[in-house]
Amino acid sequence: MLKSPEEVHPRKAFGWAARDTSGVLSPFKFSRRATRDEDVAFKVLYCGVCHSDLHCVKNEWGISQYPLLPGHEIAGIVTEVGSKVTKYKVGDRVGVGCMVGACHTCDNCKDDLENYCAKGIQTYNSIDFDGTKTYGGYSDIMVANERYIIRMPDNMPLDAGAPLLCAGITVYSPLKYYGLCNPGMHLGVVGLGGLGHVAVKFAKAFGLKVTVISTSPGKKQEALEGLGADAFLNSRDMAEMEAAAATMDGIIDTVSADHPLLPLINLIKTNGKIVCVGAPEHPPQLPIFPLLGGRKTVAGSMIGGLKETQEMIDFAAKHNILPNIEVIPMDYINTAMDRLVKADVKYRFVIDIGNTLTPA
Amino acid sequence: MLKSPEEVHPRKAFGWAARDTSGVLSPFKFSRRATRDEDVAFKVLYCGVCHSDLHCVKNEWGISQYPLLPGHEIAGIVTEVGSKVTKYKVGDRVGVGCMVGACHTCDNCKDDLENYCAKGIQTYNSIDFDGTKTYGGYSDIMVANERYIIRMPDNMPLDAGAPLLCAGITVYSPLKYYGLCNPGMHLGVVGLGGLGHVAVKFAKAFGLKVTVISTSPGKKQEALEGLGADAFLNSRDMAEMEAAAATMDGIIDTVSADHPLLPLINLIKTNGKIVCVGAPEHPPQLPIFPLLGGRKTVAGSMIGGLKETQEMIDFAAKHNILPNIEVIPMDYINTAMDRLVKADVKYRFVIDIGNTLTPA
Repeated sequence: MLKSPEEVHPRKAFGWAARDTSGVLSPFKFSRRATRDEDVAFKVLYCGVCHSDLHCVKNEWGISQYPLLPGHEIAGIVTEVGSKVTKYKVGDRVGVGCMVGACHTCDNCKDDLENYCAKGIQTYNSIDFDGTKTYGGYSDIMVANERYIIRMPDNMPLDAGAPLLCAGITVYSPLKYYGLCNPGMHLGVVGLGGLGHVAVKFAKAFGLKVTVISTSPGKKQEALEGLGADAFLNSRDMAEMEAAAATMDGIIDTVSADHPLLPLINLIKTNGKIVCVGAPEHPPQLPIFPLLGGRKTVAGSMIGGLKETQEMIDFAAKHNILPNIEVIPMDYINTAMDRLVKADVKYRFVIDIGNTLTPA
Repeated sequence: MLKSPEEVHPRKAFGWAARDTSGVLSPFKFSRRATRDEDVAFKVLYCGVCHSDLHCVKNEWGISQYPLLPGHEIAGIVTEVGSKVTKYKVGDRVGVGCMVGACHTCDNCKDDLENYCAKGIQTYNSIDFDGTKTYGGYSDIMVANERYIIRMPDNMPLDAGAPLLCAGITVYSPLKYYGLCNPGMHLGVVGLGGLGHVAVKFAKAFGLKVTVISTSPGKKQEALEGLGADAFLNSRDMAEMEAAAATMDGIIDTVSADHPLLPLINLIKTNGKIVCVGAPEHPPQLPIFPLLGGRKTVAGSMIGGLKETQEMIDFAAKHNILPNIEVIPMDYINTAMDRLVKADVKYRFVIDIGNTLTPA
């Protein structure tokens, strides 16, 4: 007989989970494993609300298994470490991002790209190697192998720092990998949401010229004055788009809504690169001729490996890069999800788990 | 009053041109400019028949201006040089590829990427800087600025060497630029025509493992035994394609017919690259999720700069890389075009201009 979520593991745990495709989250009792030799257990203080959480609670990607307890931007304080843990001790400030496991034997894992391991275990809605289900950070406690624990620098607040564990690495990794990080380069950032606004901050820290590209002219002032972008481009203004043709070294496209690629391909120079980090539901058309005529690239990137995630966090701490957040209590999460659908947040909700998650 | 093609320039010339969208080629009297200070004039001996020629004579790209005299894989012997020409002398073996002009001031030109210059002048069907029309290599004589003249190495036959000036550089340049040229890498070559069969030869010379990917199982023996490919993949065989998933570092896609990208994306490893060098009429769909999940790239490339074209020719001469050709007389060209439509050539027609182009 299958054990209930409360009985699977010895450690009692509590959080908020969705029970069906309505996506409504409600209090949920479950359990976490005992601390293994290489495990770190920590009290969760903050958890960011990623757009993926929204997709998953409503099963919009068709892969959700209920009950589903989301959250993969998790920060807190270490409460227990296993006997073989060397990097962390009780009281350390730590975080967990999108992953809690991988095979550690494939080429990707050997290259510190656990995020591309075919056997990778997601922080929630995955089946772990022991056959039990993973539950995310909308909960009071986390347990994970120390390899998946990120050290949060002393000067980084845990509330605003938490979203870097997904949103931060998702934009930092492609800027580095695709070479869009050299001072003086001109980067376009498509979409000014949770991912886009962090991309602007990293790109400015790299010394790039940054143009925000958006369908919402209302975001211009915020982009320029609030986030320090150098320019703003209304993608629905044909004249503006034409004037900016062939001026960018690269574009990071954070938009998950369906949108055409050709206007973006026209914005990049010869050898320019468009890197997609959001996944539209329907595949866009890819006009090949414009790619050929400028030796242009359209590519993808998905979060980042653990080593690079730590590098990104350390870089962010050094350069004072933090997402703009709205801290919310746990019982506000369903309202927050509704607002997220309408992009009504600047720019990331973070749940104050430590102060507001109270067992029923 | 507009001067006729015969009267525009002082030098009498003769070739075969298409007069309308029927695409039928017939004898054509025109003229070429006198040799300028930096010009090289040469007697054309051979000219390759590129698939682009077929598109252009029938105006399939909608940009043809008639009379249209095609040919951009041109090889011959220098007959005259201008007073400032330093690199060539009468009697030298030379060639001209796809380009005869560019602005020489833009970033692309400064980077030896004249092929991406927005003001580039094509060898035929272009308007040159002096306002006159360019005519290609299906003709008795060529005149071009020495910058656009390629030296054909002594050991390279001019008939088989000619197609390298377009087909060769079109596949060589992306293999180098996208880093698909390191010994031991696994390259997929989609399509085994004029471009594809040369790609196999260059890739083998680079020390790659090469798999030919084709919808025509009948090409397997030829690919393996005739061209030295290491493996053959029937892209219509789902089981074969599945077994080859995530095994390739890159793919060079030479096919201009419409075809889906997803099966190719599945063949490449994490960080893999698909480089398109053919331009399908309809933009294919680009599934973004599979790109993200393996940090994969879809990119384009179009011929190459003059410096790299010479490098490619020298590399080909050193490694005995030559296209497989069928030499034809000039008056066979319309039959050859019909056969080209049916891909009935292994793998490139080359017109024996020197011996068979006779003024009416």
